[in-house]
Amino acid sequence: MILKQKFSVMFEYNVVYTSNLFSIKNTALKKIFNQAQNPRVMIFVDENVASSFPLLQSDIMDWATHHQQVMEVVTPIGIIPGGEKIKNGLHHVEAMIASMAEANLCRHSYVMVIGGGAVLDAAGFAASIFHRGIRQIRVPTTVLSQDDSAVGVKNGVNYNGLKNLYGSFFPPEAVIIDDRFLSTLNLRDIRSGVAEAYKVAVIKDAELYDYIRTNTQAIKDCNPEIISQLVQRSSKLHLDHIRTGGDPFERGSSRPLDFGHWSAHKLEVMTGNDLRHGEAVAIGMAMDLYCAALLGMLNMNLAEEMLFTLADCGLALWHPAIDSRNNAGELEILEGLRDFQEHLGGELTLAMPVEIGRCLDCHDLPAEIVEKAVTLMKKNFQP
Amino acid sequence: MILKQKFSVMFEYNVVYTSNLFSIKNTALKKIFNQAQNPRVMIFVDENVASSFPLLQSDIMDWATHHQQVMEVVTPIGIIPGGEKIKNGLHHVEAMIASMAEANLCRHSYVMVIGGGAVLDAAGFAASIFHRGIRQIRVPTTVLSQDDSAVGVKNGVNYNGLKNLYGSFFPPEAVIIDDRFLSTLNLRDIRSGVAEAYKVAVIKDAELYDYIRTNTQAIKDCNPEIISQLVQRSSKLHLDHIRTGGDPFERGSSRPLDFGHWSAHKLEVMTGNDLRHGEAVAIGMAMDLYCAALLGMLNMNLAEEMLFTLADCGLALWHPAIDSRNNAGELEILEGLRDFQEHLGGELTLAMPVEIGRCLDCHDLPAEIVEKAVTLMKKNFQP
Repeated sequence: MILKQKFSVMFEYNVVYTSNLFSIKNTALKKIFNQAQNPRVMIFVDENVASSFPLLQSDIMDWATHHQQVMEVVTPIGIIPGGEKIKNGLHHVEAMIASMAEANLCRHSYVMVIGGGAVLDAAGFAASIFHRGIRQIRVPTTVLSQDDSAVGVKNGVNYNGLKNLYGSFFPPEAVIIDDRFLSTLNLRDIRSGVAEAYKVAVIKDAELYDYIRTNTQAIKDCNPEIISQLVQRSSKLHLDHIRTGGDPFERGSSRPLDFGHWSAHKLEVMTGNDLRHGEAVAIGMAMDLYCAALLGMLNMNLAEEMLFTLADCGLALWHPAIDSRNNAGELEILEGLRDFQEHLGGELTLAMPVEIGRCLDCHDLPAEIVEKAVTLMKKNFQP
Repeated sequence: MILKQKFSVMFEYNVVYTSNLFSIKNTALKKIFNQAQNPRVMIFVDENVASSFPLLQSDIMDWATHHQQVMEVVTPIGIIPGGEKIKNGLHHVEAMIASMAEANLCRHSYVMVIGGGAVLDAAGFAASIFHRGIRQIRVPTTVLSQDDSAVGVKNGVNYNGLKNLYGSFFPPEAVIIDDRFLSTLNLRDIRSGVAEAYKVAVIKDAELYDYIRTNTQAIKDCNPEIISQLVQRSSKLHLDHIRTGGDPFERGSSRPLDFGHWSAHKLEVMTGNDLRHGEAVAIGMAMDLYCAALLGMLNMNLAEEMLFTLADCGLALWHPAIDSRNNAGELEILEGLRDFQEHLGGELTLAMPVEIGRCLDCHDLPAEIVEKAVTLMKKNFQP
């Protein structure tokens, strides 16, 4: 006898774009907690954000005092390590879960995480497994997290050097994108975030690509209005993809949002995270644009025009690690292909652009194509 | 600006009832792996099952050799601790994930777990967070796991004495219910599993209750055919509830399948797991049947008839711990009410039977009602 079980689970969340979330007059949180009855909220803040905004914690408490009926903040606010180090192993995840347990949070409480992508990944993973999942509100504070990962459904931490070996798919209750957090970022961090906006334009949206192409100088200068536009349009495309792509929890092999990422992940590891994620993705996209052209999937002139647009945004498209070789003389970056296939499973599936705004899956990327792509990158983009 | 994100994720799995899964002629696994292309399968076996069935591992390997095109078994098969100890902290979860990583499993590979409920909870949790979730096949080997938890969507481990503090909702790819695994269980373990079948009958299905009432002696004797019937009917009701109950991932507060569980969880902790989960649930249901009657929700004569039916199945409805008191003279079991509310969150919500096959939510259970229920239990069921 066989019983067939089949059911759907509906996920809903709002992405709110605002400015200065914790100014007393700001009502974004009111709308978010609208239906909850004065819930208890535990707040974790990225240490980098806490030091860039020394008044943030008192602003939060002032807001909560003025809006007592909206939420009850669990004190003290937790300050957690920023950057990739919070994703090293389970240590910080366990510490965060211990503080949630100590505060007697229940499944109707909330965890609000304010920080960069790595912090959102780790704290989001902790929240997703505490009591089988507690409600979480993400407040991304970098261009990279605002325009890409934070609006999505993925969490995770690294383990024994394996990226996101532990993780979950767990949609947030809300995402709040506050452009004030971008005001203290340096040029390098802002430009790094631009890489993911460029990515989604190339694979999904020719209009956004045009917007980038006509604004490269302003993007390179990190003009706040242009960056804010990029964040909004890119995050919306990301949301659209999750909602309409047919595979929000990535059970299949097709992953267009991973364009440029197979070599980027490897480059991050090879450089000991000297490269920001977005910087690695920029180089990874250069690799794949050349590969797509060399495979005959994309016109070579168009590929190079696209590459120069990206370079004009202030992103480097070369790093010596891309050309590093093992004892057998093979490109080390090729290990990234194997790791990528393993994490996703099944047949190798790479999203390759075929024109601006459209990509197709490619299931074979021969080593000699990668070799040729590296040669072209070196020739055109080695400083 | 606010963007509203909304999408559904469809979950599908088959529950297969079979006998002697790894006899060469058995084709249940063939049907399950039908669409997968010779996937890699890592198998974990509960140490108690491995010692009750010393030929199991070689049977598995023989089956795999005879059906090479169906699946590739990763060797060696992992033998993991049985019973609640595997759920103590993250230690065993980390070890299982390390072996999955070492075997280079990907998201298209499978983990098959053969064991009792605790083993399925812990290994299922490991599988649900490895690479954000790998496909899992559950093979429950006890009456309790076959008729209840294994067909559901919950995983978890305990942490610092807090039950299921770490966990996830993650539907399996398939569940295989093989009655051969019940053949070596002792009477105590079988009867303990009957408690959950009785539970689902009381809250959902008057016909199943009648079946139990007319077969109490055969149930007490653990007649294999009757037990098999109970497993099938109870697991089907459990599946129906998840599919049609409107809240498969339990985001609301109503949890009818937790009838009898608030005091059962506490009793398990208080007795240091001397009581089997099902034995604790039987006592917990006695508590709630009396409470429901004392609250005026259920006819007292009917409640007592229902209690004697349960006792006639061979389940004890009394344990001295139920009457244990703290220094202030309060019943310690009342702490279970607070813990239960905390794990679920929100308002206290207890499923109370109002007639056979139907329950209603109750949001207040005064201490004096619990006191009176304990007095009645002592009077009628203390040996």
